[in-house]
Amino acid sequence: MARPHPIFLLTDYGLEDAYAGVVRAVIAGAAPGVLVMDLTHRVPRGDITAGALQLWSAASYLPTPCVVVAVVDPGVGTERRPLCVTAGARALVGPDNGLLWPAAHRLAAPGLPIAWVLDRPEYWRFPVSSTFHGRDVFAPVAAALASGTPAHRLGTMVETWERLELPTAVAGKGRITGEVIWVDAFGNAVTSIAEQQLNCLQAPRIHAGGRDLGPLRRCYAEVGQGQVLALVGSTGLLEVAVNGGSAAHLLGLARGDQVEALEAAQETDTEPNGPVRHLEGEST
Amino acid sequence: MARPHPIFLLTDYGLEDAYAGVVRAVIAGAAPGVLVMDLTHRVPRGDITAGALQLWSAASYLPTPCVVVAVVDPGVGTERRPLCVTAGARALVGPDNGLLWPAAHRLAAPGLPIAWVLDRPEYWRFPVSSTFHGRDVFAPVAAALASGTPAHRLGTMVETWERLELPTAVAGKGRITGEVIWVDAFGNAVTSIAEQQLNCLQAPRIHAGGRDLGPLRRCYAEVGQGQVLALVGSTGLLEVAVNGGSAAHLLGLARGDQVEALEAAQETDTEPNGPVRHLEGEST
Amino acid sequence: MARPHPIFLLTDYGLEDAYAGVVRAVIAGAAPGVLVMDLTHRVPRGDITAGALQLWSAASYLPTPCVVVAVVDPGVGTERRPLCVTAGARALVGPDNGLLWPAAHRLAAPGLPIAWVLDRPEYWRFPVSSTFHGRDVFAPVAAALASGTPAHRLGTMVETWERLELPTAVAGKGRITGEVIWVDAFGNAVTSIAEQQLNCLQAPRIHAGGRDLGPLRRCYAEVGQGQVLALVGSTGLLEVAVNGGSAAHLLGLARGDQVEALEAAQETDTEPNGPVRHLEGEST
Repeated sequence: MARPHPIFLLTDYGLEDAYAGVVRAVIAGAAPGVLVMDLTHRVPRGDITAGALQLWSAASYLPTPCVVVAVVDPGVGTERRPLCVTAGARALVGPDNGLLWPAAHRLAAPGLPIAWVLDRPEYWRFPVSSTFHGRDVFAPVAAALASGTPAHRLGTMVETWERLELPTAVAGKGRITGEVIWVDAFGNAVTSIAEQQLNCLQAPRIHAGGRDLGPLRRCYAEVGQGQVLALVGSTGLLEVAVNGGSAAHLLGLARGDQVEALEAAQETDTEPNGPVRHLEGEST
Repeated sequence: MARPHPIFLLTDYGLEDAYAGVVRAVIAGAAPGVLVMDLTHRVPRGDITAGALQLWSAASYLPTPCVVVAVVDPGVGTERRPLCVTAGARALVGPDNGLLWPAAHRLAAPGLPIAWVLDRPEYWRFPVSSTFHGRDVFAPVAAALASGTPAHRLGTMVETWERLELPTAVAGKGRITGEVIWVDAFGNAVTSIAEQQLNCLQAPRIHAGGRDLGPLRRCYAEVGQGQVLALVGSTGLLEVAVNGGSAAHLLGLARGDQVEALEAAQETDTEPNGPVRHLEGEST
Repeated sequence: MARPHPIFLLTDYGLEDAYAGVVRAVIAGAAPGVLVMDLTHRVPRGDITAGALQLWSAASYLPTPCVVVAVVDPGVGTERRPLCVTAGARALVGPDNGLLWPAAHRLAAPGLPIAWVLDRPEYWRFPVSSTFHGRDVFAPVAAALASGTPAHRLGTMVETWERLELPTAVAGKGRITGEVIWVDAFGNAVTSIAEQQLNCLQAPRIHAGGRDLGPLRRCYAEVGQGQVLALVGSTGLLEVAVNGGSAAHLLGLARGDQVEALEAAQETDTEPNGPVRHLEGEST
């Protein structure tokens, strides 16, 4: 028998309890020999947008074939539907609450993903709880997919499913306006401004937190220790960072905060980079 | 050669250091190709009861066959014995301090588990430290079990071994009295009151933290955002929760706190659910 | 086809984001069926010495053959070179910033490791970012090594590469002077004093944090709950610990703090073990 496809997990279960471990155990029992790997279990609890973003950012790097179990599911046990979405030989399994939308569309582009509502309880684990579908519905369905069961046996194809669009940046004349969409554990503030958008500007300077952060850099160590910089990060999005420190902390940046890229000619109301007296803790 | 059985890990090692990683490395060397999966490494340090509870809660979901290495071991290096306990084709390996007791009995029910004191050093890794038996004793023994070595080759069967009973609830007339036995990372307060006990009451209402939490719910989103509720959680135990929040924080619940289920006719000294002025941070 | 060698990961990526997960995904795609296991992802961010120490401490327990991807890489994207270092059938992959030095020398002893600068981009993943070489360079190279590609196809052998020596203790007459080199998550203060050095002293007493911690113990539970002790820890280094508590917290120990082992005859200016009034929180 062929080896089952690898299964990746992305949840907000955390690692303090055995919840993620139980999902692994159920998968291991249903698909012996399957490789189960974590994307992350530290999505902020119940934060569907954050989970969707994390899944989107990892999507391009997933192997083919594979299965992802993604669970950020505050509506578990309600009428929200369990879903499987396929893009070629990659399948995403999770709640129909938008979580899977951006990653599925990225994986399927330029085509469209196919969504299936999971309505064949014979593939679930019984008794099915009303609070832990990761264990009782998504894990056994993922194990079936990983073992070669086609999606059409596990559910019914649907035309419409929950949409979730990640924030995008707006391009104006010589100016792109975006926002912080994620602060990673290094304190880097990832923004909604894409590399391709930046390429349309001539020598843009980045502005965030009321400051001119200077031109685009290539890597963190291009500026001095403790200095702020802006660069295109590893996901292809503009990122505000501090070399050896936390941009979120130093600039007080949080999700939703505005970030702009401006051509030199554009007027701004922020001061140029350099020593800033009112920011403590920065080495300048 | 057949694939080794999968090995699951449950410890209080945390993930900050390479301790859990070293256990994986030793297992990988002793049983090449074995799948090693985490249940959790975040059991509160040295808290044997908490570890026993986590292992018990995961036990029913473990695949057959498999091996679990469970280590919460404040007495490492003392006279406390190293143990292997088998229940059919599932084996638990760890210290003889009660940690394995509840899970082993759950796995073996309605029969009894068989315990073996690990007294065959030829299966250990040398030199054996007096502070890290997870690496030097339990990991190599688990690798041997996973590779098909029978337990009777690894140790000597014993009749008595360290007992640890998890708290249970007491049923009275129209009333069940239990306690909080675990606060999970979502802030849900898991109690010692079992679903089967609740089934003996007519339309019970749940009381905890000096409040009437209302009737049993099915899922978190059955009440409004920020509202308290009680439901049978995914382990089959009564759980006090807050939809989108932390019950432990909101009600000030901690391990050992009393929780009661009462039939409507029973008298209580707690006030009915609803706005509670002295609780800050709750949306009512 | 033979199973690929297992791959171990040690990084400062943390587990909050999907960075470690993406590394796993890239490896899984490039070497299907490979087992990927974590040593740790919680090296303090950008702390090369801490990462080198963690890797060194785990090195002896790594299986043969295997590949380690080790990334603590504040200079990513600069001129610092990507490296593969081999010691027999074990290979370490990571930045040339000292991180790999102690582990590689430990693995190769009494011989020397062989270092290769990774300069064959045909083995990398494109486009190569300037901020995430773990994903774009080290993961695909590790997958190639794990699948049997010899190191000499992946890079060019070099004579000199970045050196990093871990702190060592100084032996004097009846006295060994070392320092705290790591505080683990249990609060144990691991020191630079090696077991072999201690063996040269007659009945040494350990001094740290201005206190005489008494003679060497064998295990934590040899002293009362909450009591301080010193023992040779699981890595073969002298360790200051508290039974059931945190030595770092209780004694205020941090990396770099001096620790001494003294023969009874040596004069000291610290007071003997026992109740210490100015230390709060200790049970004596």
